[in-house]
Amino acid sequence: ELGPFTEDLNKTKPEYLKSFQYENKLMPSTWIVIRIDGCHFHRFSEVHEFEKPNDAQALNLMNSCAAGVLEEFKDIVFAYGVSDEYSFVLKKESQLYRRHASEIVSAVVSFFSSMYAIKWNEFCPHKEMKYPPYFDARAVCYPSCEILLDYLAWRQVDCHINNQYNTCFWMLVKSGKSKSEAQHYLKGTQAQEKNELLDQLSGTINYYNTLPLMFRQGSSVYWDKETKMVDNEGGGAGKSRKIVVVKHCNIIETSFWEAHPGILDEKHNDFRL
Amino acid sequence: ELGPFTEDLNKTKPEYLKSFQYENKLMPSTWIVIRIDGCHFHRFSEVHEFEKPNDAQALNLMNSCAAGVLEEFKDIVFAYGVSDEYSFVLKKESQLYRRHASEIVSAVVSFFSSMYAIKWNEFCPHKEMKYPPYFDARAVCYPSCEILLDYLAWRQVDCHINNQYNTCFWMLVKSGKSKSEAQHYLKGTQAQEKNELLDQLSGTINYYNTLPLMFRQGSSVYWDKETKMVDNEGGGAGKSRKIVVVKHCNIIETSFWEAHPGILDEKHNDFRL
Amino acid sequence: ELGPFTEDLNKTKPEYLKSFQYENKLMPSTWIVIRIDGCHFHRFSEVHEFEKPNDAQALNLMNSCAAGVLEEFKDIVFAYGVSDEYSFVLKKESQLYRRHASEIVSAVVSFFSSMYAIKWNEFCPHKEMKYPPYFDARAVCYPSCEILLDYLAWRQVDCHINNQYNTCFWMLVKSGKSKSEAQHYLKGTQAQEKNELLDQLSGTINYYNTLPLMFRQGSSVYWDKETKMVDNEGGGAGKSRKIVVVKHCNIIETSFWEAHPGILDEKHNDFRL
Amino acid sequence: ELGPFTEDLNKTKPEYLKSFQYENKLMPSTWIVIRIDGCHFHRFSEVHEFEKPNDAQALNLMNSCAAGVLEEFKDIVFAYGVSDEYSFVLKKESQLYRRHASEIVSAVVSFFSSMYAIKWNEFCPHKEMKYPPYFDARAVCYPSCEILLDYLAWRQVDCHINNQYNTCFWMLVKSGKSKSEAQHYLKGTQAQEKNELLDQLSGTINYYNTLPLMFRQGSSVYWDKETKMVDNEGGGAGKSRKIVVVKHCNIIETSFWEAHPGILDEKHNDFRL
Repeated sequence: ELGPFTEDLNKTKPEYLKSFQYENKLMPSTWIVIRIDGCHFHRFSEVHEFEKPNDAQALNLMNSCAAGVLEEFKDIVFAYGVSDEYSFVLKKESQLYRRHASEIVSAVVSFFSSMYAIKWNEFCPHKEMKYPPYFDARAVCYPSCEILLDYLAWRQVDCHINNQYNTCFWMLVKSGKSKSEAQHYLKGTQAQEKNELLDQLSGTINYYNTLPLMFRQGSSVYWDKETKMVDNEGGGAGKSRKIVVVKHCNIIETSFWEAHPGILDEKHNDFRL
Repeated sequence: ELGPFTEDLNKTKPEYLKSFQYENKLMPSTWIVIRIDGCHFHRFSEVHEFEKPNDAQALNLMNSCAAGVLEEFKDIVFAYGVSDEYSFVLKKESQLYRRHASEIVSAVVSFFSSMYAIKWNEFCPHKEMKYPPYFDARAVCYPSCEILLDYLAWRQVDCHINNQYNTCFWMLVKSGKSKSEAQHYLKGTQAQEKNELLDQLSGTINYYNTLPLMFRQGSSVYWDKETKMVDNEGGGAGKSRKIVVVKHCNIIETSFWEAHPGILDEKHNDFRL
Repeated sequence: ELGPFTEDLNKTKPEYLKSFQYENKLMPSTWIVIRIDGCHFHRFSEVHEFEKPNDAQALNLMNSCAAGVLEEFKDIVFAYGVSDEYSFVLKKESQLYRRHASEIVSAVVSFFSSMYAIKWNEFCPHKEMKYPPYFDARAVCYPSCEILLDYLAWRQVDCHINNQYNTCFWMLVKSGKSKSEAQHYLKGTQAQEKNELLDQLSGTINYYNTLPLMFRQGSSVYWDKETKMVDNEGGGAGKSRKIVVVKHCNIIETSFWEAHPGILDEKHNDFRL
Repeated sequence: ELGPFTEDLNKTKPEYLKSFQYENKLMPSTWIVIRIDGCHFHRFSEVHEFEKPNDAQALNLMNSCAAGVLEEFKDIVFAYGVSDEYSFVLKKESQLYRRHASEIVSAVVSFFSSMYAIKWNEFCPHKEMKYPPYFDARAVCYPSCEILLDYLAWRQVDCHINNQYNTCFWMLVKSGKSKSEAQHYLKGTQAQEKNELLDQLSGTINYYNTLPLMFRQGSSVYWDKETKMVDNEGGGAGKSRKIVVVKHCNIIETSFWEAHPGILDEKHNDFRL
């Protein structure tokens, strides 16, 4: 019944309608970073009773999804996550979706979201998911390795600053202060003062440094040689293979990058599949 | 331990690093369409044994997720879906995410994907999801209502053409032909010939028109007045309310749009919440 | 001597180097406006001793260049100019440079600039051009005729407001006030007060309305039927032809557009060459 | 008379109308190249009887305008021109027009065009300019110095290839062949064959290398220390100053860039004004 109209339409219109699509290619030979951020995750974390200031289960879920992203999209060479945010770094010469921003951004965030929902029960076994979580995402390009590392350092610094603040804030709240009192109390305090406050409230010297590395340094995800012997199919003498690892290391200092030259430099990368 | 470096970095770099973000605002006063498409869904449908040429459960799952999108994003006034594809239409004056393409595209596709994973068991109760499905997405703007309707008509025509072809193809395959024989057989056939072929293979006159409307016309999703009396909290005399409906109507002909003037025209829309 | 290197380079690189070009197509079926603006024209007008607040010679030069632009680029259907600014409107379906923003913008501003330099002596015969004037330019699209007319009305309103202010300002200065006194004096005054001030300073009732229309309404440039009889090659009975005209009319009111339906509506336009 | 409408319009519309402007910022920390190209210069060169295959006067005019561009836009550190094309390189950290593509492109091409018209008589003293020449222009960014140099090398290789072809072509035409015969004759010939052909037609060994460097290598424009003693205001012992120079050097080989480290590297650049 769509017949006659159909024939007519199909002959003349599709090219015209496609002409409204615009091209948004990301500059060649630059480092593409896809950053995803939880939408309304403040509410999501409350409804699902995430522990404050950090919920290890929820963070592990994020990390597991990020690892899945690296396994699915081979051009992603590194990811860094903190809180409800994750940054994915594509190798400089990646031709994923011919570098079309919209396709890259949407495929990555869609895969991540899908996996988040699927793995929820595994990581939060005693919590029912009340409604679908979702993330927004964007692509940013950096023209040099130096600026890319500055970007990653910035995210890790942000992790540290936010975590220190949040740790103080929630410790004050747990000590009986209201949220606005806690906020007022912390306004304008320096890093040093916050550390002293934490020591005092906890009764522990250098309390902040006793917190898990994941809370303080965020999570880095990348392909690495498996260090254990791999006993694959009838053994054989200690073959190594590459696996995606999640670590909580200092990525601000260059020593991390020097110890893992293959992450950003393809020339060191020939052992990747 | 991030201390001194941190302070230095944070003072100088963030603005510089943010300056690499580029703005991609969609033109004001135009109709934004977000179209999502399944990534590698050919394989996904095989692994999960979707019925061919149409799997009603899988389509109902898509439709349910689309309805969820309309409930979450109030600026989306219409959606049209077929196969593993869905188009979401935002109202012309929408300020969702201040019309930033990346945010709109990513939030919609992320929400849809998340919901797809969550609702899988409800719609495909006897199938285990083997791996995460995902979708790519893009935004396209249309400057006038006429061109928007041409776009939607194009998608519905595509639905019809593909469905007719696929129905023939799979009927031939089920009749014993190989896939490449079926393909060869259909090459260059016109709509009329395909209909005759279907009648012949099925032994039913006008077989194509006996197929479910959902397969032939795709699915349209929009807010509509609930027709039944609503007995909300202590009755009251038949108040109506708006709900998201999924219909399988002809959206090529103007009669649909004339019967639902509130969908595209805000002036008729004041009864929306 | 470039030999061997040359051969090598030419085989491998051009496609890669071209891949850095990005596409910036303007949305189909929208009204493209190219607006050019004098760069550092405040200084240019001082160095070349333009009359204040309006220099008729300089405005006529601008108008003549704009008319030349319409003759060169047939897709430009209307132009509106005031001071050192000109807006050129391309017809909605224009395919000029396949709607690539950079090419359209650069070609128009380049042609205009070239012509400005060439025609200088004709319009400012007793002034030497001391250094090259130049203009910046940008493209903006409007999705509907209504918004396009709002844009043009906005420019004409701006013309009026600026002209009224500048007329007062320079009259105060000529009456002996310093520039900063004049500025201070006018701060916060309404249209009505400015008109009264002008009447008072000039000793003329309704002085503002005695000023040339070009100063008060700016200049509109478009193709129109020549009203006079054209005596082309051996006469013949009063054939009309189209020429580019420069008028100083009110383009805020719809009457202008109703009287010239062919400017924006191609259906009325078949008599254009 | 614009009164009441005016007030109303001006209060509500400008922000809305400005919202249609889109931002097109060029990526920070990349090398911006503005390339201008003559529009319809084939015809322009015929109408103005440029010598074939190269007109030294016309090239000198292009070069003089390019030098003017460098003097006006201090962020442009290098320019390379051949035929009716010129590429202008902005320093990597340039904030010219806050890196807005449209403004940079339009201002450069406008200034160049204006200067071209103004200087015409100086360089082509016995030729009347028949109509306004104009250029289109575009911006391209390159993320690294290496790719930028590849770009410039590509343009110089193109210069060489085109010039060799054109020299052969016009020598054949001058020897009595028709244009299409000459074209046919040259089809598929290699560089070596073309050189032999030139030697044969001219009766000169290595004829190609006797041609002026400007024809074979194009023109490079940059700021350099003036080598002569400068006798500024009462002498003083040989102070140097920077001036814009036009040279015809090999920019494919790295030796040029090593000999002029200040062009691309700001650290060597502190003697620039």
